[in-house]
Amino acid sequence: MPDPLSALRDHLAPIEDLKTAAAVLAWDQETFMPDGGADARAHQLSTLQSMAHERFASDTTGELLDRAAETVDDPESLDTAASLVRVTRREYDRARRVPSSLVAELSGAISEAKRAWAQAREQDDFPAFAPHLERLIELTVEKAEAIGYEHEPYDALLTEYEPGLTTPDVASTFATLREDLVPLVDAIAEAPQIDDAPLHGSFPQEKQQAFGERVLSDLGYDFDRGRQDVCAHPFTTAFAPGDVRITTRYDESFLPSALFSTLHEGGHALYEQGIAPNLARTPLADGASLGVHESQSRLWENHVGRSRPFWRHYFPLLQEAFPDALGDTAPEAFYRAINRVAPSLIRVEADEVTYNLHVMLRFELERGLINGSLAVNDLPRRWNEAMDDTLGVVPDTDTNGVLQDVHWAQGAFGYFPTYTLGTLMAAQLMEAIRDDLPSLAPCMAEGAFAPLLDWLRTHVHQHGRKLTAPRLLKRTTGQDLSADAWLRYATTKFGALYDLS
Amino acid sequence: MPDPLSALRDHLAPIEDLKTAAAVLAWDQETFMPDGGADARAHQLSTLQSMAHERFASDTTGELLDRAAETVDDPESLDTAASLVRVTRREYDRARRVPSSLVAELSGAISEAKRAWAQAREQDDFPAFAPHLERLIELTVEKAEAIGYEHEPYDALLTEYEPGLTTPDVASTFATLREDLVPLVDAIAEAPQIDDAPLHGSFPQEKQQAFGERVLSDLGYDFDRGRQDVCAHPFTTAFAPGDVRITTRYDESFLPSALFSTLHEGGHALYEQGIAPNLARTPLADGASLGVHESQSRLWENHVGRSRPFWRHYFPLLQEAFPDALGDTAPEAFYRAINRVAPSLIRVEADEVTYNLHVMLRFELERGLINGSLAVNDLPRRWNEAMDDTLGVVPDTDTNGVLQDVHWAQGAFGYFPTYTLGTLMAAQLMEAIRDDLPSLAPCMAEGAFAPLLDWLRTHVHQHGRKLTAPRLLKRTTGQDLSADAWLRYATTKFGALYDLS
Repeated sequence: MPDPLSALRDHLAPIEDLKTAAAVLAWDQETFMPDGGADARAHQLSTLQSMAHERFASDTTGELLDRAAETVDDPESLDTAASLVRVTRREYDRARRVPSSLVAELSGAISEAKRAWAQAREQDDFPAFAPHLERLIELTVEKAEAIGYEHEPYDALLTEYEPGLTTPDVASTFATLREDLVPLVDAIAEAPQIDDAPLHGSFPQEKQQAFGERVLSDLGYDFDRGRQDVCAHPFTTAFAPGDVRITTRYDESFLPSALFSTLHEGGHALYEQGIAPNLARTPLADGASLGVHESQSRLWENHVGRSRPFWRHYFPLLQEAFPDALGDTAPEAFYRAINRVAPSLIRVEADEVTYNLHVMLRFELERGLINGSLAVNDLPRRWNEAMDDTLGVVPDTDTNGVLQDVHWAQGAFGYFPTYTLGTLMAAQLMEAIRDDLPSLAPCMAEGAFAPLLDWLRTHVHQHGRKLTAPRLLKRTTGQDLSADAWLRYATTKFGALYDLS
Repeated sequence: MPDPLSALRDHLAPIEDLKTAAAVLAWDQETFMPDGGADARAHQLSTLQSMAHERFASDTTGELLDRAAETVDDPESLDTAASLVRVTRREYDRARRVPSSLVAELSGAISEAKRAWAQAREQDDFPAFAPHLERLIELTVEKAEAIGYEHEPYDALLTEYEPGLTTPDVASTFATLREDLVPLVDAIAEAPQIDDAPLHGSFPQEKQQAFGERVLSDLGYDFDRGRQDVCAHPFTTAFAPGDVRITTRYDESFLPSALFSTLHEGGHALYEQGIAPNLARTPLADGASLGVHESQSRLWENHVGRSRPFWRHYFPLLQEAFPDALGDTAPEAFYRAINRVAPSLIRVEADEVTYNLHVMLRFELERGLINGSLAVNDLPRRWNEAMDDTLGVVPDTDTNGVLQDVHWAQGAFGYFPTYTLGTLMAAQLMEAIRDDLPSLAPCMAEGAFAPLLDWLRTHVHQHGRKLTAPRLLKRTTGQDLSADAWLRYATTKFGALYDLS
């Protein structure tokens, strides 16, 4: 008879195997799968996911959790046993509350909604998507009611991605952010615009790939425990700490596309490669939350990859790789170009500053949809008004507006805010890091990233899913979630770039 | 309440999903997986395979089979319902007879044996592998006893790969084959040798790949339902009729390596792509047997790919692709070179004729190992004696002898004969095809393979696993399994090539 903790781990391990096997299939689907494989792949994924859910939400999991909990002295401890019981219990309770019939109904509705969304987006036909969205919202509210919440149904959705944070937490943080962000964007809009001509030119894919791989290796990404492939919508996926894969896409006439997507996904991947190996095959072998995950991608993409010290080291190498396009570009002109701020229609193409306005707009709209204060039919109008209000640009089509993101069609309500939460957390972490590592900038200027990665490994990565975001922030920065650090960072950086008074 | 047949299909479908998901993971393991992913992958594969086995060997399968069987009028019918019940019953009975404890023990022993074999092979140290092989034989005999057999334990192993054939069937067919094959090999050895110099030279990989893909497309391989990747040990794998993948390997200094491996794997892949789509997610979505599968690969590799008509069409294109290496080669010299026969040590590098001697040697040795007439310690000596007797060459090391193949370390006893069975079946099928398609040769000489593929689709591919090899041969050729057709083919072809009287 194994001890209760081993019994729990033995029960959870094959469930994690099913989930990581599904992740391999999903990766293949996005990278190499031929078109003809789509139907079979949908069946395979659905089978693996439903078997994993069935086993996880079983009575057995509850009984093993009860027995393992008795062996834990301090339920809030960071040790693996206590954390495993705590995090598994949290996710088990959530999984048990949603009836299987609702899970199945949602899964079917999502499949149909994704197809309808893809077609509606292609044909700029929001009304064709509207009934699917209405149905998804109805089922999602039902799910939220089944899960339960403190303040409003949206809480129940948010905690799936960001355990430990409530809707009011996010709303008040975003309100603070907005207060200084909107004037910053306005001031930038009135300042003379930065020229981003150096980023447009001829950048052969293989050179971009070689440069990207060189940078990834330098940052600490281990190609023996991962690989990089091409995909239309870049993502990172982990099958184990020893197999963490990145995807990117190349635009041969616009350098930043692959460059910053590689740094961004590299940040996610460094996190996953840094999770302690003894957490493998448990629910702890994952990021703390989507926000914390995004803090890692944004930290490497923006605080490192869009900084002067980084390019002090890499710009000469970039010029070597692209002598025709960049041979005559001054380093400072390049640094300015990659930090250009300009309101635009599409979230995934937005700059570091206005990106957050895109996210906040989606947060407010989806909160309204879930809480019943916004009707689906009013959504396109409200989207366009909000774009006009906050960014001063109005989509010409719904395709470039409310239909641009797949998230709602996937039933992923509560996901959007984590993008900006991650951005804010990255800035909070960077302030703590700069305190701990006074020579960070000179190190980066020499292409030495080990001190930074070591700090992140120690304070963030190794713990996997043991900590929630609020607890992780408290431990590492002494603070609660806050927009202040990012506002300090952005005001300083973009104030200087745009010569704002 | 679904009808009994739908209930059976609904039960089997997720089991097939688990198996095909495992096939995706195995494909990734051989093609793209980074080294660091190995441990997690072993766990994932083992979980998927054991869940599939557990569900398949469950009482539920038996009950659903009993109910579905009652709806079938003619159990031997080729219709899908009757075939599904018949083939599933056959595999269910087999799966039920092997106790789970033995499955687990064998699986563990195989893992250890594969590691030991890889090391022993590297270090030319058969004695280090011997105890693992002994243990595997012991467990395999136990498995054979559990399954049951008509004549000898080896029957029970053979039927896993070749349902409907017994050890005496194979032994007597091989005896007939040997009778004329050995004199043919001897006569070739005494004739002036063919010069294969045209095949050695500089053949850039990308040109080889482009040529291979062109040929695959011409043969009828559908790249929208498959893809080709690089792998050290080429194989074909199918996740569904809509997703059938090939792998190959390139040797830039020796043309036949990738060329004939591509044709060979292409033959396997055409079979899988041709299985009727309505068999998907059932045990019928597979080849009839390993022998029939190999008949398809050998047919395209040898009867098509090593024929004069084929190269009448492709040799000018090959010369265009490799003008430096082949510009001065006469078509006939090329045709002769790719059909050179020369005894050699390594099975996978053997020519079309002597290949069968390698296979028969393994069949006799493994039959002796299983039936107790050959001791593991005597195996290397017996291997070398048999090589000397049949091929006239003796391995300098066990690495190039008894340790060259992974099959025994994988517990795959009974697998080897299917290579030659497939070769014989291909020749039998080709005689029937030539009767039905008198213009086959002129078609091939124009690069038109649709008539041949249509014939195979109609008579072989679409039926998937509905037929056993003997039944398929009877239906298509009117014959039982026999070595005669291949001997006629080989005697004529190589008699002419080597000018034998």
